Amino acid sequence: MDKKADLTPMMKPRSVAIIGASRDPHKVGNVILQNYISAGYEGKLYPVNLNANEVLGYKAYKSILDIKEAVDLAVIAIPAPAVPGALEQCGKAKVRSAVVVSGGFAEVGEVELQDKITEIAEKYKIAMVGPNCLGVMDMRSKVDTLFLPTKKISKPKVGFVSFVSQSGAVGSTVLDVIAGEGIGLSKFISYGNAAYIDEVDILEYLMNDPETKVIVLYIEGIKRGKEFVELARKITKIKPVVVLKAGRTSAGTAAAHSHTASLAGDYAVQEAIFRQFGFTVANDISELLYYAKIFASEVKPKGNRVGVITNGGGAGVITADEIGSSKHLRMAEYSPSVKKSLRRIMPSLVNITNPLDLAGDADAGRYMDAMNALGSDPEVDMLLVIILYQTPGADPGVTREVIQKKITLSKPLLVVTVGTDYTLRQAKLLEDGGVPVYDSPISAVSSLEALFEYAEYKKRH
Amino acid sequence: MDKKADLTPMMKPRSVAIIGASRDPHKVGNVILQNYISAGYEGKLYPVNLNANEVLGYKAYKSILDIKEAVDLAVIAIPAPAVPGALEQCGKAKVRSAVVVSGGFAEVGEVELQDKITEIAEKYKIAMVGPNCLGVMDMRSKVDTLFLPTKKISKPKVGFVSFVSQSGAVGSTVLDVIAGEGIGLSKFISYGNAAYIDEVDILEYLMNDPETKVIVLYIEGIKRGKEFVELARKITKIKPVVVLKAGRTSAGTAAAHSHTASLAGDYAVQEAIFRQFGFTVANDISELLYYAKIFASEVKPKGNRVGVITNGGGAGVITADEIGSSKHLRMAEYSPSVKKSLRRIMPSLVNITNPLDLAGDADAGRYMDAMNALGSDPEVDMLLVIILYQTPGADPGVTREVIQKKITLSKPLLVVTVGTDYTLRQAKLLEDGGVPVYDSPISAVSSLEALFEYAEYKKRH
Repeated sequence: MDKKADLTPMMKPRSVAIIGASRDPHKVGNVILQNYISAGYEGKLYPVNLNANEVLGYKAYKSILDIKEAVDLAVIAIPAPAVPGALEQCGKAKVRSAVVVSGGFAEVGEVELQDKITEIAEKYKIAMVGPNCLGVMDMRSKVDTLFLPTKKISKPKVGFVSFVSQSGAVGSTVLDVIAGEGIGLSKFISYGNAAYIDEVDILEYLMNDPETKVIVLYIEGIKRGKEFVELARKITKIKPVVVLKAGRTSAGTAAAHSHTASLAGDYAVQEAIFRQFGFTVANDISELLYYAKIFASEVKPKGNRVGVITNGGGAGVITADEIGSSKHLRMAEYSPSVKKSLRRIMPSLVNITNPLDLAGDADAGRYMDAMNALGSDPEVDMLLVIILYQTPGADPGVTREVIQKKITLSKPLLVVTVGTDYTLRQAKLLEDGGVPVYDSPISAVSSLEALFEYAEYKKRH
Repeated sequence: MDKKADLTPMMKPRSVAIIGASRDPHKVGNVILQNYISAGYEGKLYPVNLNANEVLGYKAYKSILDIKEAVDLAVIAIPAPAVPGALEQCGKAKVRSAVVVSGGFAEVGEVELQDKITEIAEKYKIAMVGPNCLGVMDMRSKVDTLFLPTKKISKPKVGFVSFVSQSGAVGSTVLDVIAGEGIGLSKFISYGNAAYIDEVDILEYLMNDPETKVIVLYIEGIKRGKEFVELARKITKIKPVVVLKAGRTSAGTAAAHSHTASLAGDYAVQEAIFRQFGFTVANDISELLYYAKIFASEVKPKGNRVGVITNGGGAGVITADEIGSSKHLRMAEYSPSVKKSLRRIMPSLVNITNPLDLAGDADAGRYMDAMNALGSDPEVDMLLVIILYQTPGADPGVTREVIQKKITLSKPLLVVTVGTDYTLRQAKLLEDGGVPVYDSPISAVSSLEALFEYAEYKKRH
């Protein structure tokens, strides 16, 4: 691997210096240090502050050069004009990586200032992320350079999805929703203006990272097209990549330039490349999350035939429509023996068709019988289970049965459920139990389709 | 109006008989009576029960013929084979309307039994809804024939959206979500197999109902195509109609037939008709709700130019993309005087472009300044305000400013916000304050487009 792309010192640092660590709780440098402390980071912490001897109980240093031990990561949170000097000192102190959270560079026209820090990073081979970024997070090493008020953002659980976002605000929003959706996170990298480390470097690192099984990517521009394409060819043979590329239209392109000084390029070409190399393409933050969720569940479908179980006929019809109008999926035709056994165990009001409408009084036992039958049917490749908790029979018992089935089933299984308080509590239990939950047939069917498309892509390559 | 279509006795009954009112709390007839009592219905209640003298504190009658006063509405919740007899007695007792919630008719092949009750309804001119339906609800008269466990469904607030659903389960799910989304409800009608009163009758009633300003429709089949088209032509000149037609594909059509015995017909033809007459077409329950929400806000756009305000650059870019790739909307170009005044009041880091990226530290004051400027700009027809509450400056003060602005602004204004706990609390406050809130740029932009398309349709007709 190219040395530039090795982000290990950043994600797994033994020591972190925070340049601009402040005693003022409203300052970014204070929030970052506090986050390290709260997260329980076990390496060494060195606040760097010109005017203080101590910050938050840690000995403070006037300059990074005063720290005698080796520093793996420097987080730089000082005004833009002071960044080149601080970075130069990092180079002299042999700091291996840096996250520059400060804004005030190319995104506001300060191109020269940005070029200067790029040169310094290159000269000293500092793996520098930023400037104008939110920074990085590693759920296992407890690295957390994010300067975000913790009360406003839920913390995700530890998992295997890594999320790369050029934008800080999209990044923090997605982080919050990843937590809310019960998706397990491995690493988070917000890389802002990409003055040195860019999406190609980050993707290369994550491609080889054993703690990352799904890569989710939000980008506004691609700087090194050729290298990106070369990497794209390799990466999806190893793990799925879900991408949201902003700047698809001329209106969006203009906005992207003003945001992270990105040249968004011709989206039609880019999307064609994404699809050619098996990327899953999202058009919205919500789609990004839907796809991340299904890939995180890590079960590959053998084919495109979906069995739908429902306790609401109408929801079954809408789902059948979505499957019918999808590009690749189709409604499964149950095998004769499964039909026969379903007919025997189901009440006479239940028609043995796909969708299998268990009726409004369906309870845990009926769901269990249906999932067992379709789960073992070789003619069914994936299970889409609709639970309308508003109906009388749908209760926590149904939730438990679905979680149980998900554990043993070797086919993809997801749940669609729509509603407020009662429903949301059950949805949370399902997600904690490892079941991907969707709030509409459209999103569920698109997600199964993405899963199928990627499985087919891997078969061909 | 055709007498058959007059649903006034059903929606505003002075007296209700519940045939099958049971003392057993697990029986549908008990739940329905209990719901009337809990809702605070002020008319007269008559339980009809062969074996009891009293149900839930009300005197019970052996037959509807034993009730000496006039009955406006009979709710029938007894086994299917007993329904024709009970309905015949309703006719003799001059009951004006009936809701048959019982299932076991055409949807399970009992076509003759269904034909029988249709004949009886016709003979006595009883406005009969059902069978195999969830029934009706009127938020003002407190009619509520729904047999749903109240702990599982949130109750919507009183408003002007009426929701018509052929399916009971979709109906109850949407009811629950309408409450969760803060949409005000006027009437709910679930009409099941449509043996007598069908979607045409219901739409005709709602078209003339002053308590209904938006009609939301979930249907699986249209029985009287010619009458439907005639009505469609008239209805959208008066009020907006949002429609979700299940059974769009052959897979869905098959499922619809098994669900409510509907013949779904050729969807391409139907969709063309819907669009020709200015219906807003949804493909999913979630879309149905998005559209209902924007129409419920009751502000019409003068044009198609959207001004976007954001505190997250990336979310602004995604939104610009959505607007750029929409059929009719476009990004507003601010007038020179507004640009000038924005340049004067905004911090230098804020680029005066559309989207107007107020930056991650934007607070209530900056949002207020931005909304005031774009709100008064004649070059801006609609405001799409993105609030990422994960950023440091976005707090309840921003929420308050948006609610204030919404009250005085004569242009459509909606909010996009994405997140978990903290964000959801702010979203709820916004909705209680009358601001439509969306959880993705895609849904927000589609909703503004629907609003614009309908405004244009009305201009032309």
